[in-house]
Amino acid sequence: MSNKRIGMQTINLPSKPYIIGNAAIVGKKEGEGPLGEHFDKVIEDEMNGQESFELAEKSLYLEAIDTCLQKAGIQADSIQFLLGGDLLNQIITASYAARDLAVPFIGLYGACSTMSESLGLGSMLVDGGHASHVLCAASSHFCTAERQYRFPLEFGSQRTPTAQWTVTGAGATLISSAPGRHPLARVVQISFGRVVDLGIKDANNMGAAMAPAAADTLCALFRDTKTTAKDYDLILTGDLGKVGHDLLLKLMQEHGMPLDDQHYTDCGLEIFDRESQDMHAGGSGCGCSAAVFNGFYLPLMAQGKYRRLVLMATGALMSPTSSQQGESIPSIAHAIVLETPKEGA
Amino acid sequence: MSNKRIGMQTINLPSKPYIIGNAAIVGKKEGEGPLGEHFDKVIEDEMNGQESFELAEKSLYLEAIDTCLQKAGIQADSIQFLLGGDLLNQIITASYAARDLAVPFIGLYGACSTMSESLGLGSMLVDGGHASHVLCAASSHFCTAERQYRFPLEFGSQRTPTAQWTVTGAGATLISSAPGRHPLARVVQISFGRVVDLGIKDANNMGAAMAPAAADTLCALFRDTKTTAKDYDLILTGDLGKVGHDLLLKLMQEHGMPLDDQHYTDCGLEIFDRESQDMHAGGSGCGCSAAVFNGFYLPLMAQGKYRRLVLMATGALMSPTSSQQGESIPSIAHAIVLETPKEGA
Repeated sequence: MSNKRIGMQTINLPSKPYIIGNAAIVGKKEGEGPLGEHFDKVIEDEMNGQESFELAEKSLYLEAIDTCLQKAGIQADSIQFLLGGDLLNQIITASYAARDLAVPFIGLYGACSTMSESLGLGSMLVDGGHASHVLCAASSHFCTAERQYRFPLEFGSQRTPTAQWTVTGAGATLISSAPGRHPLARVVQISFGRVVDLGIKDANNMGAAMAPAAADTLCALFRDTKTTAKDYDLILTGDLGKVGHDLLLKLMQEHGMPLDDQHYTDCGLEIFDRESQDMHAGGSGCGCSAAVFNGFYLPLMAQGKYRRLVLMATGALMSPTSSQQGESIPSIAHAIVLETPKEGA
Repeated sequence: MSNKRIGMQTINLPSKPYIIGNAAIVGKKEGEGPLGEHFDKVIEDEMNGQESFELAEKSLYLEAIDTCLQKAGIQADSIQFLLGGDLLNQIITASYAARDLAVPFIGLYGACSTMSESLGLGSMLVDGGHASHVLCAASSHFCTAERQYRFPLEFGSQRTPTAQWTVTGAGATLISSAPGRHPLARVVQISFGRVVDLGIKDANNMGAAMAPAAADTLCALFRDTKTTAKDYDLILTGDLGKVGHDLLLKLMQEHGMPLDDQHYTDCGLEIFDRESQDMHAGGSGCGCSAAVFNGFYLPLMAQGKYRRLVLMATGALMSPTSSQQGESIPSIAHAIVLETPKEGA
């Protein structure tokens, strides 16, 4: 048993790697939401001056990375790894962006859990002494995701009340072994999730599919570290939306590890005003937690407003092919425990 | 700069993590090739008793993992991470296999470079003290890949002479902090690759697209570690095939770091008899390097036949969508330096 493991699923990071850079670039609709003013940039339309939706998503991805490096005052050639992914087949957003960056690239696929997955892995590489600067990035785009996963936009299909809206956005985080100019947070523990599947088959109700995976990982974190929800200022899930958010509250109650509604929220609920923006169950897509975490919550951690925060992005791991073949939706969630860099704050 | 880095792209693993388990399960055609007798199992037909090609691929994946654990004498609940991927959209083979295994899962996408990508990451997690047992696995299946990337098999399309044949196969490797019962090899260094793209657009000539990425990573390894091809008993690329193999020899010559044809080969050349099996440029697919490395070369390392070996699986990171949009093929290669566990052998 390695000395950095706690219990079954949790890993302790003795060096507490620093987050020293962050950026979030989002689409117009996301810019009109309640967090709009906090993002580094809101693009004018879904094309962002490009010739295809896919190139537009890649341009968001690269802008998030450039902005992150600029804010941290770090040159691209100091980066030892880009850990990244997105929702598209063969993760072409991240792969083509990595071509432009020319830094060693580790491609990830975790659906909407990608931001947590990359932060968890990146923090371990820094903690293990294998890298001093690791860049983590994730994105999604409403138009590329609809075309690939559902229907071409021109088809004009109706959305069900449980459906979530794929966020157009990209987020980037820079992890470092040293505090840099403006440390935003430190990564102290990680619980990587198992794939959980309770048999939900409705690809328009991913919140319900993902909530059990979120509960599984959160219970593992609490059990392994002997903590409860009270030990964290905020638990922030990524993209359960309204349906999954309410289901997670219920599941944690049933597991005897209740969450406090005042200190639990979901990125998919925060990014849109569901009523005035007609967003049904809320936002989704790996760009959702990437943008909300990097644009809104990391700066609050830097200010000491949240001393201990859990980011737990969740992913639904089905494909259109597996859905057509009648398979249910396997899901996953990875929990990242962050502390404010302000000692004693 | 972290103390485990050498030069720009290479990472030293002071603890030299052990490979203590290996397995390779392949399809009928692969079983009829020159390495057929070395694989742990050859399945009888492409369905392997399942209802779809996709379920067949998943069954290969799980069989490779089960066989690997059994041979190593390790229970599944001792595994702290499964690092895995495959070629299918949303890596459904690995994701659905991970659902059955119920161990923490880190999903990767590196196209045909996945076996190297998982071994590199897994070795760092063990070296960093974050895990004592990590399972790495990759697969591909001719029928699922043809359907997704090219044409449905029923279409009966012709293949070009430069085309490679996607291997039906899965490989699994178990990395550990301790030597276990039968250590097969040790992982001593890793060079993660950058995404390289010299403008090749022909998805039926992936060897030509990937060779420049292979050259880029191999030059980085040689430069960072001040070694030449002579310092390794074998350099084993993954899935360049005949075209890419010959191109890599040429590129390395041009870079002034020539390879020795006697100590360089490619998994895509080894797995089939290209003449009698009518295999055009050779094998490809992440199952190719996964099966050849685990089934054939790891046992030879355990015997001390190869004292120092470089496994460098290569991946072509395009998607059908990016090809349709006129994009060229970005490629990547990750190099893993392995030593025999037999000291002084």
